Amino acid sequence: MQRIAIAPPQIHDNYIALTPEQCHYLTRVIRLPNGAQFQAIDGTGKLYLAELEIDRSQQHSSSGNARIISTFNSELDPIANRELPPTINLICALPKGNNFDDIVRACTELGVTTIYPAISDRTLLVPSPQKLQRWRKIAQEAAEQSERLTIPTIEEPQTLQTIFSQLSASNANRYWCEARGDRPHLLECLQSTTTPITTQITIAIGPEGGWTPDELDRAIEYDFQLVSLGRQILRTITAPIVALSIVSAATCTNTRPQVLI
Amino acid sequence: MQRIAIAPPQIHDNYIALTPEQCHYLTRVIRLPNGAQFQAIDGTGKLYLAELEIDRSQQHSSSGNARIISTFNSELDPIANRELPPTINLICALPKGNNFDDIVRACTELGVTTIYPAISDRTLLVPSPQKLQRWRKIAQEAAEQSERLTIPTIEEPQTLQTIFSQLSASNANRYWCEARGDRPHLLECLQSTTTPITTQITIAIGPEGGWTPDELDRAIEYDFQLVSLGRQILRTITAPIVALSIVSAATCTNTRPQVLI
Repeated sequence: MQRIAIAPPQIHDNYIALTPEQCHYLTRVIRLPNGAQFQAIDGTGKLYLAELEIDRSQQHSSSGNARIISTFNSELDPIANRELPPTINLICALPKGNNFDDIVRACTELGVTTIYPAISDRTLLVPSPQKLQRWRKIAQEAAEQSERLTIPTIEEPQTLQTIFSQLSASNANRYWCEARGDRPHLLECLQSTTTPITTQITIAIGPEGGWTPDELDRAIEYDFQLVSLGRQILRTITAPIVALSIVSAATCTNTRPQVLI
Repeated sequence: MQRIAIAPPQIHDNYIALTPEQCHYLTRVIRLPNGAQFQAIDGTGKLYLAELEIDRSQQHSSSGNARIISTFNSELDPIANRELPPTINLICALPKGNNFDDIVRACTELGVTTIYPAISDRTLLVPSPQKLQRWRKIAQEAAEQSERLTIPTIEEPQTLQTIFSQLSASNANRYWCEARGDRPHLLECLQSTTTPITTQITIAIGPEGGWTPDELDRAIEYDFQLVSLGRQILRTITAPIVALSIVSAATCTNTRPQVLI
């Protein structure tokens, strides 16, 4: 069934007030007839089953409504819940070219909560505001495609110092990935930490050329643990996907026994 | 330092007989002067440090030699060895479009040994022979870029039945990833198996729409264990990267204590 993303203020009583774009998409692009059902997610964990209700006279107009048939809350149905237990923050140094598009897409699939695009010492270009809009659109589409009910937040590109000041007060489970370093493996750290990994995990991934020594020092000051993703040399586009795959696997297997008992 | 891939028969005594393409690349594209050093990998785990030796009279000719200064064997230097301990076979159902390019590139970075492109029940198009050449070229370039000394083998696209008949006799550690199934997590299986995971691991990833029930039955017949990659819905392009990330993490952390002791 078709799924679209809506904003919570679009809900009025038992109706979704569709925007002209959504109306166009549902009636003209995918050609849903009046009365057809579709799903809408509000990005905060709620899913609505809704029915298109457009007056015949308004069929080709630019606005319309959808009647809500039922509301689904991700917390109440663990089977269909695609969210990982912890809040996952990804600090990712901006790579060259359009590679950040693919990072946003794959990390959304893998359950990231917030992405902080970081302007690191070795970042070459600060992206335009249009890029940020593009990444947010990609995150929304990837969340729809992978059936997530939560749409990740993509913050504005900022320096590491600004990002550090925005992180939540809890400084547990902060991991700073370093290529070519002899550090303990991220999986090892996640599986041996004494602080629960089901609450919050923050991961940082460097740019082409890696972090500068000064950046590593500042990360340690902010309670990040330096970790390795293995002995391979990964591209900057692959490294965040590998890191989130490990976080996802560690938290899934960590919580699995609780689900079974 | 620049690194190129060569074929083992190009080695004669202490010289590498460069092909016209390699010669053109070294002298004209990256403009190495005579006597400059570069690295060559033969794809089987050996790396050569070599020095360009082209007669002045032959500077613009289409052939040339390189004198081997030293030979490096990956097994003898564990620090610079990018290879994972096990042989990793990836059976990957052919996805739509050009997505297989990205799968080959990322899985090469992550240490795959052999990729079997699979024509599954839900594969829509059988690719042209040009595609296979393209994937082999991508694997070679990705191996060079990620500093691997081994270039993965990309087999011809084949049906599952043919692939099953080609797998080695050892049937341990065969994992068949199934989306939307309630299966044990791949990481859990790798960390609890009693057969060593440092020898050989075979992973299978399905196409868009997943495996058919008949394919799942045949996989079980061939001693594959059905596993999950977590509760997320992944694109066919993301799933193999996630699976290999988990294999890499499990085998790295598994062997780490042996290295330290």
